[in-house]
Amino acid sequence: MTIFASDNVTPACPEVMEAINQANIGNIESYGHDKWSKVLDNKFSELFEKDVKVFTAVTGTAANSLALSSITPSYGNIYCHKISHINVDECGAPEFFTGGAKLITIDGDDGKFNSDELKKNIRGSGVVHNTQPASVSITQSCETGVTYKLDEILKINQVAKENGMKIHMDGTRFSNAIASLKKSPAEATWKLGIDVLTFGGTKNGCMDAEAIIFFNPSEVNNFQYLQKRSGQLLSKTRFLSSQLDAYITDELWLRNATHANDMARKLSEKLSKINSFELTYPTESNEIFIKMPKNIQDHLNNEGYSAIPDDMFDGSVRFVTAWNTNLNDIENLINTIKEKL
Amino acid sequence: MTIFASDNVTPACPEVMEAINQANIGNIESYGHDKWSKVLDNKFSELFEKDVKVFTAVTGTAANSLALSSITPSYGNIYCHKISHINVDECGAPEFFTGGAKLITIDGDDGKFNSDELKKNIRGSGVVHNTQPASVSITQSCETGVTYKLDEILKINQVAKENGMKIHMDGTRFSNAIASLKKSPAEATWKLGIDVLTFGGTKNGCMDAEAIIFFNPSEVNNFQYLQKRSGQLLSKTRFLSSQLDAYITDELWLRNATHANDMARKLSEKLSKINSFELTYPTESNEIFIKMPKNIQDHLNNEGYSAIPDDMFDGSVRFVTAWNTNLNDIENLINTIKEKL
Amino acid sequence: MTIFASDNVTPACPEVMEAINQANIGNIESYGHDKWSKVLDNKFSELFEKDVKVFTAVTGTAANSLALSSITPSYGNIYCHKISHINVDECGAPEFFTGGAKLITIDGDDGKFNSDELKKNIRGSGVVHNTQPASVSITQSCETGVTYKLDEILKINQVAKENGMKIHMDGTRFSNAIASLKKSPAEATWKLGIDVLTFGGTKNGCMDAEAIIFFNPSEVNNFQYLQKRSGQLLSKTRFLSSQLDAYITDELWLRNATHANDMARKLSEKLSKINSFELTYPTESNEIFIKMPKNIQDHLNNEGYSAIPDDMFDGSVRFVTAWNTNLNDIENLINTIKEKL
Amino acid sequence: MTIFASDNVTPACPEVMEAINQANIGNIESYGHDKWSKVLDNKFSELFEKDVKVFTAVTGTAANSLALSSITPSYGNIYCHKISHINVDECGAPEFFTGGAKLITIDGDDGKFNSDELKKNIRGSGVVHNTQPASVSITQSCETGVTYKLDEILKINQVAKENGMKIHMDGTRFSNAIASLKKSPAEATWKLGIDVLTFGGTKNGCMDAEAIIFFNPSEVNNFQYLQKRSGQLLSKTRFLSSQLDAYITDELWLRNATHANDMARKLSEKLSKINSFELTYPTESNEIFIKMPKNIQDHLNNEGYSAIPDDMFDGSVRFVTAWNTNLNDIENLINTIKEKL
Repeated sequence: MTIFASDNVTPACPEVMEAINQANIGNIESYGHDKWSKVLDNKFSELFEKDVKVFTAVTGTAANSLALSSITPSYGNIYCHKISHINVDECGAPEFFTGGAKLITIDGDDGKFNSDELKKNIRGSGVVHNTQPASVSITQSCETGVTYKLDEILKINQVAKENGMKIHMDGTRFSNAIASLKKSPAEATWKLGIDVLTFGGTKNGCMDAEAIIFFNPSEVNNFQYLQKRSGQLLSKTRFLSSQLDAYITDELWLRNATHANDMARKLSEKLSKINSFELTYPTESNEIFIKMPKNIQDHLNNEGYSAIPDDMFDGSVRFVTAWNTNLNDIENLINTIKEKL
Repeated sequence: MTIFASDNVTPACPEVMEAINQANIGNIESYGHDKWSKVLDNKFSELFEKDVKVFTAVTGTAANSLALSSITPSYGNIYCHKISHINVDECGAPEFFTGGAKLITIDGDDGKFNSDELKKNIRGSGVVHNTQPASVSITQSCETGVTYKLDEILKINQVAKENGMKIHMDGTRFSNAIASLKKSPAEATWKLGIDVLTFGGTKNGCMDAEAIIFFNPSEVNNFQYLQKRSGQLLSKTRFLSSQLDAYITDELWLRNATHANDMARKLSEKLSKINSFELTYPTESNEIFIKMPKNIQDHLNNEGYSAIPDDMFDGSVRFVTAWNTNLNDIENLINTIKEKL
Repeated sequence: MTIFASDNVTPACPEVMEAINQANIGNIESYGHDKWSKVLDNKFSELFEKDVKVFTAVTGTAANSLALSSITPSYGNIYCHKISHINVDECGAPEFFTGGAKLITIDGDDGKFNSDELKKNIRGSGVVHNTQPASVSITQSCETGVTYKLDEILKINQVAKENGMKIHMDGTRFSNAIASLKKSPAEATWKLGIDVLTFGGTKNGCMDAEAIIFFNPSEVNNFQYLQKRSGQLLSKTRFLSSQLDAYITDELWLRNATHANDMARKLSEKLSKINSFELTYPTESNEIFIKMPKNIQDHLNNEGYSAIPDDMFDGSVRFVTAWNTNLNDIENLINTIKEKL
Repeated sequence: MTIFASDNVTPACPEVMEAINQANIGNIESYGHDKWSKVLDNKFSELFEKDVKVFTAVTGTAANSLALSSITPSYGNIYCHKISHINVDECGAPEFFTGGAKLITIDGDDGKFNSDELKKNIRGSGVVHNTQPASVSITQSCETGVTYKLDEILKINQVAKENGMKIHMDGTRFSNAIASLKKSPAEATWKLGIDVLTFGGTKNGCMDAEAIIFFNPSEVNNFQYLQKRSGQLLSKTRFLSSQLDAYITDELWLRNATHANDMARKLSEKLSKINSFELTYPTESNEIFIKMPKNIQDHLNNEGYSAIPDDMFDGSVRFVTAWNTNLNDIENLINTIKEKL
């Protein structure tokens, strides 16, 4: 049983699976010349209320690293949170794709850093001995499930731009963030200064689909070669683009995320009420981090749940909800916990 | 109409699509801990009659480049044919993944090079000024559709090993080669000295699945980090592994390839009989290269075929058959040609 | 006037300059086949009481990065102090030379970290998502002028080796450290577990000469290609090797460093006695960090000294002594300060 | 005896050695703030009759690779001759510095390629699967000692620019080329379209000094970080800049090269007159390639000369003259040969 272990244990949702099956009919041109790939730019431009340029990747790691490599020279600094996925969970992919850029890690409460914390980490601009400030990467919603508020991003952007830097948003859970913030995709991205967004699909109903969205098409430059060169340009692009097509049709992305967030909130409330349990961060999207006694952890692990305390999250256990989480799942978890209270 | 344009215009075959749909049931552990991923090593070991270690990638470009990066240091030479896919069609991915290795290109008839041609290109071993002989890459079946014969590979291997080099086989169309050579996978690979094989699935019935097969598991070393670091480790591995699982079950890979080769042979025979047409290479797998008058090319292109002469293939036009090619397709093409004769 | 600004403002010392001039006589074989290059291994082996293998570089940045690249894979972690030269002053050279390794920065008092601080930063071994513990780099004497004590290194080595890591010593001021610790080069390096040492010459009397010393020649592997490939293999090696030859003849390296340290101690004592001045770190080698009132800083800067407070060193001003510092220099500095007290 | 083996066996010439000794007086600011470094831009601008921007490196390998990395993206093609130094003698440094660019090697008589040969090797512009045409590198004088004539370069430049490429000139023996062509540095470089020149000093009287000259300062961009990051920014820049300063003062570079060329012409004439000897290429600068009987080669090698036939140069033996070659050296060589005729 892998319920709540992560949102990447989920299957593809029915709409996405249907789209893939629909795309599997007959011979179709490869390398982006299929009908789904050809409309991605337009469809995402509509969604973001702006002309955008879209590229695809099959993993979040590739999507993030490709995006970062387009805005960070080899001698550049990428400012990110110390526990950000790009820093701790991608086996150095950003360094690989950028040709050796340096991740400058920033501490900050709840998995976020603010503009002041960013500012005081910036140094060396124009000094030949120092790697150069180049880009900022924020995760939305971030690794703790907490979201950056719009004004927080606005201030971060101000510091970034004052220092000649671009901003990347790691949106592996961008949908959950939007569902939580109740803002439009435009309001939550380019209107705040975001330059390039990794819009995640895999964790929220897709099989394996991530979109890299450039808000300033003129900055795309030769991105296509970087994508190809890294082995991320599929030949049968229809199978990736059709996923994303379904994903942004009829707000599937938002519906899936809204559901996941609802389930998280419900679970969070129930967990918070348990004596001896303590919520580590506010539950703002689809991740819950909670401290619980060791014997409960053991019991959960014995019962097939994944309840492993993580130092990086202050010793708390993580539960993640998804598009397919249901109320029974929550009841079962709570009941299993109560067996040991 | 994209018939015959390439084998990457094809859909996934029914067995693979069924496997993907079957894999889409419920929550399942990610990152290789699903039941399909866990048996890949064993299943491929059976197929190859040897303990092998298998990794996956979603594109041939990634599979080839990752494989090469495991046997080639940054200062190494990769010996390959001048028209090999790794040299001309991967936008420098081998250079990227290896940290800047050098592809030493060899000419040779019919898209193949032989052991003598390899030998005379080897130089500089131990000389600090020169990049160092490190690996040899042969494509099987090769870019012209011609296959390397077993004794040819054996001799290439001998030269490679005498010079301390490993051999990679780019098997994007390995299945077609096996179907043509009528040898076992073992006889056609490690028994000849092949160290690592890229076993292609995408062009022969899969959606997007390539297997990287190490015949000497002790040489795998830290390959998993290279794979992750390049963004090729999917989270939902079930969707990739289930494709490969179906692909090697009941010899689907071989049946698909045998069919494609049969279709190619039939088409090749018909085309060869046309006056003013001239076959450029013997049709040994699923690719046909044929020279034809310009007016026929134009007619075909007008009728929706892809008949573009390519200098790299001596000005010939390429037709590729696949698992889904049928006799009607062949009739239609021949009839369309005859309209202009 | 650049007195005390750094030890890289100094000229080459007479013995080194004489050696260079002596080497400039007639035609001599290039690329390491001159008589000075050919004896480097032996001469350094004598100095270190162990068979060592020596390579050269013209900058500390190159020497450090090359050394690190020989013990750190592209997906590896290099553990180092947050203010270490490799982290803040080499413009990302370690990342470039290693193909994108990650510097894990550790805080720690006085510019040093201890074995416990190292230990608690190690994570992820064997986890595919994480960059892998690979190497530890310590600077001796470190950026604050403080030296690592032998037992401190021993403990760091223990943690390193328990975690399968190699240790690099950035010895740009190794001579000053040895002069301070009063231990033999052997006692201060390989006997403590150091695997590779960057032995600096440039700051201590050479023109531009750094030695990279491998204490386990079997681990040298293909280092020569990395050196050549990075443009650090001079053709006229005689001019670099002759510097190092002179440098380790008759303990020139140690005499120069001992003098510099003596001068530093004298200056440090005088500065410490000044009211309103506060020494930031103990003066253990040839660097003095001292906090002083702003008006004194301004006065010194006006008078041609370099007295710039640095946040990285807690707002203190740095004075560096060298082989050519004399008592007059110290008197002049103190007198200049006293003008404003 | 290493006479004629190469021009890198020579000592520094007296003027350069004097300059180095002169630079060794007292403390002087480091990292380019010495008086020699500060005037390099101006002095070279005068020499080239144009505002240029100059950077330095200690090896030709570093200079070439840095220059190429400034005009070639990681997915770019560098067009060069098959026997060019960057292709065969730099252990893959261009690939390392560019992050994996591809050297497209061109055959061509006498070590040169022409604009037609360049043209027919250009392909794939704008095609995502192909590495992209980015730069052209020509060696002047080239590896055979032959020079590119001005109109040849003009035509190559035309093809380059039509294809959106920049041109690099590997001028390790630029001085010898100028001495041979009897044109001004301006006429032989930027007036023909050269974008960046590696102006060699080491082989023509310097100790270890190469200048990288950008003819369009606006294209320099962030070159300084690439230089630093590769370990080529010396701290004691005075010792490198003072060499170059002396080198271009009073046309020392030209006088040295003119002498070397004169000696080569004289030697070439004498060698050509010998029966059974055959000149492989016209002797246009300071390198002579000549075919000679095996027994003469053996005799010369026994007598301490280096007379090793090289397949890359059609089995000929190379003799190189330099600033310090004299008529006696030539007499001695001829006499030694005659002993065996």
